[in-house]
Amino acid sequence: MRATVMHKARDVRIEDVPDAAIRNTTDAVIRITRACICGSDLWPYNGGPNVNGQGMGHEAIGVVEEIGSDVQRIRRGQVVIMPFAYSDGSCLFCDEGLQTACVHGGFFGNGGEAGGAQAEALRIPHADGTLYPLAVGEDDALMPSLLTLSDVMGTGHHAAVTARVRRGGTVAVVGDGAVGLCGVIAAKRLGAEQIILLGRHADRIALAREFGATDVVSVRGMEAVERVRELTGGLGVQSVLECVGTEQAIDTSMGIVRAGGAVGRVGVPHYDVLPGAQPMFYRNVVVAGGPAPVRAYIDELLTDVMEGGIEPGRVFDRTAGLDGVPDGYRAMNEREALKVLIRP
Amino acid sequence: MRATVMHKARDVRIEDVPDAAIRNTTDAVIRITRACICGSDLWPYNGGPNVNGQGMGHEAIGVVEEIGSDVQRIRRGQVVIMPFAYSDGSCLFCDEGLQTACVHGGFFGNGGEAGGAQAEALRIPHADGTLYPLAVGEDDALMPSLLTLSDVMGTGHHAAVTARVRRGGTVAVVGDGAVGLCGVIAAKRLGAEQIILLGRHADRIALAREFGATDVVSVRGMEAVERVRELTGGLGVQSVLECVGTEQAIDTSMGIVRAGGAVGRVGVPHYDVLPGAQPMFYRNVVVAGGPAPVRAYIDELLTDVMEGGIEPGRVFDRTAGLDGVPDGYRAMNEREALKVLIRP
Repeated sequence: MRATVMHKARDVRIEDVPDAAIRNTTDAVIRITRACICGSDLWPYNGGPNVNGQGMGHEAIGVVEEIGSDVQRIRRGQVVIMPFAYSDGSCLFCDEGLQTACVHGGFFGNGGEAGGAQAEALRIPHADGTLYPLAVGEDDALMPSLLTLSDVMGTGHHAAVTARVRRGGTVAVVGDGAVGLCGVIAAKRLGAEQIILLGRHADRIALAREFGATDVVSVRGMEAVERVRELTGGLGVQSVLECVGTEQAIDTSMGIVRAGGAVGRVGVPHYDVLPGAQPMFYRNVVVAGGPAPVRAYIDELLTDVMEGGIEPGRVFDRTAGLDGVPDGYRAMNEREALKVLIRP
Repeated sequence: MRATVMHKARDVRIEDVPDAAIRNTTDAVIRITRACICGSDLWPYNGGPNVNGQGMGHEAIGVVEEIGSDVQRIRRGQVVIMPFAYSDGSCLFCDEGLQTACVHGGFFGNGGEAGGAQAEALRIPHADGTLYPLAVGEDDALMPSLLTLSDVMGTGHHAAVTARVRRGGTVAVVGDGAVGLCGVIAAKRLGAEQIILLGRHADRIALAREFGATDVVSVRGMEAVERVRELTGGLGVQSVLECVGTEQAIDTSMGIVRAGGAVGRVGVPHYDVLPGAQPMFYRNVVVAGGPAPVRAYIDELLTDVMEGGIEPGRVFDRTAGLDGVPDGYRAMNEREALKVLIRP
């Protein structure tokens, strides 16, 4: 079968690899019907530390082709969402809705034991705990939005939840990538009154405004901090959704959060320590977040997607087949595309 | 009047100073009937950066002697708790129960514009917002426990609340000082099932066990982390109450918190950055806490103190008059006393 393989920085290829196959009795194999490229895929693309010839991609919708002998709940032929992390669905963390800490869990497409979803097919460990069956056909018009429930919409929602977005609250979203835009949707959905987007790309800003952003700050660093303070009566915001992961993004986040407020981090951190441990303390600021347990959030978000209440699929601005994946990486890396949907 | 003045490291004296007097129309003056020495007073005593000849002490109960012309709620003759921070009681932060972020607030006994409570009397800014009237006589037998509501019991409770202690949960309390011991009381009160105290002093450990600690870890550093993990099935605890503030204490806290758990910091941090921003992220760990809004917690905790459900006053193991204050600092600094109650 054909799959996306990252050989080294900027060297991502579509190759023939061994067919996806059942390895453990709790596995399933899905035929990938939709996948996409994630902003986090650009870290290895730009020479991140984890490049080892791995299969890429961790967001997908597919059709179940095979199941192992111990799979009980998932059945052949189902259309399923594949969250970016696999999880057994039965450990104490899964019970608590933190599937990204599952004791038997792991991540797709990061060079670990599971392969990548930018491929024709994929083996799914712990199929019963991982996959979420849908009651739609594989070419349903809602596919783009449903696909975001495998990562970016659930991740934006996690940022909002861990940043404690409340009805009537004030929110800043740091970053205008797909996750940041989904963070705007999530903040709006949870009832935030003021939603300030920190971003610099005109087309994304326009989309953010349609999603519910009330203000936009396009400067950076201390200027951004000052501007957000101006927009909030000098106080800062109650909730910051940190959707980038750079040192500058976390510095800005800590600077714009109001006393008693919370920073929800979902950008994979490329810094080792949290700055400002003392001001954070004196101002009773909460820092939370991490890899989103998107599996837990599907129940809640799916209803809104099915009813058209939210349209996170609008973050996709380009569609490609597998052959177009390498150019999709290039286009996203050059900010020519926001997020590329793949139809293998 | 006589008051405690910190001149330089190890040089704390009782001196004659100008009488406490109304300065603003919202002030009151209280005669201090009970005060005490705080673990945080030992930082300037040991050469901390904020020694400038200031009046010391930020925990007190007193009797209202004078009120300014705009004081409405507080009346002469009332016995009142004086929380360690003053607050106007009307700003948006006070409304939200975060009086330690009050826009007109500040702290007693830290060299700011308010004086210290280890004295015969004290001016109280924003008396209506700050003071909490009690329905007991000034020599009530419950005075030691009532006095802890001015700081250590409210602070231990804040650690527990921000560390999200839940019924049936697992908790570690880092530090066996008065705040740590109150943290044990708070965790027990909130229904924690396992409460692990990290401390090394036999008498404090004995008291912690009476307060509800189920396990004790007396080693430090990586050994402590390993021991807590052994006590929790390898997972760590859901809630860590960080009641020390040193770099080692926060390192240990981050090492013993379980995925999805929370660290509630109430030890004044003597470190500039939070370590382990990446493992904290990957494990969805929450870091919260700060100066406790003890004013907000009195309502809830007072009932339990009055009914004898909790006895935080047992953290006092020595009583002194004002003349005994300098020796009280020495005794607490040498760990000869746990916490010294002052009767001016």
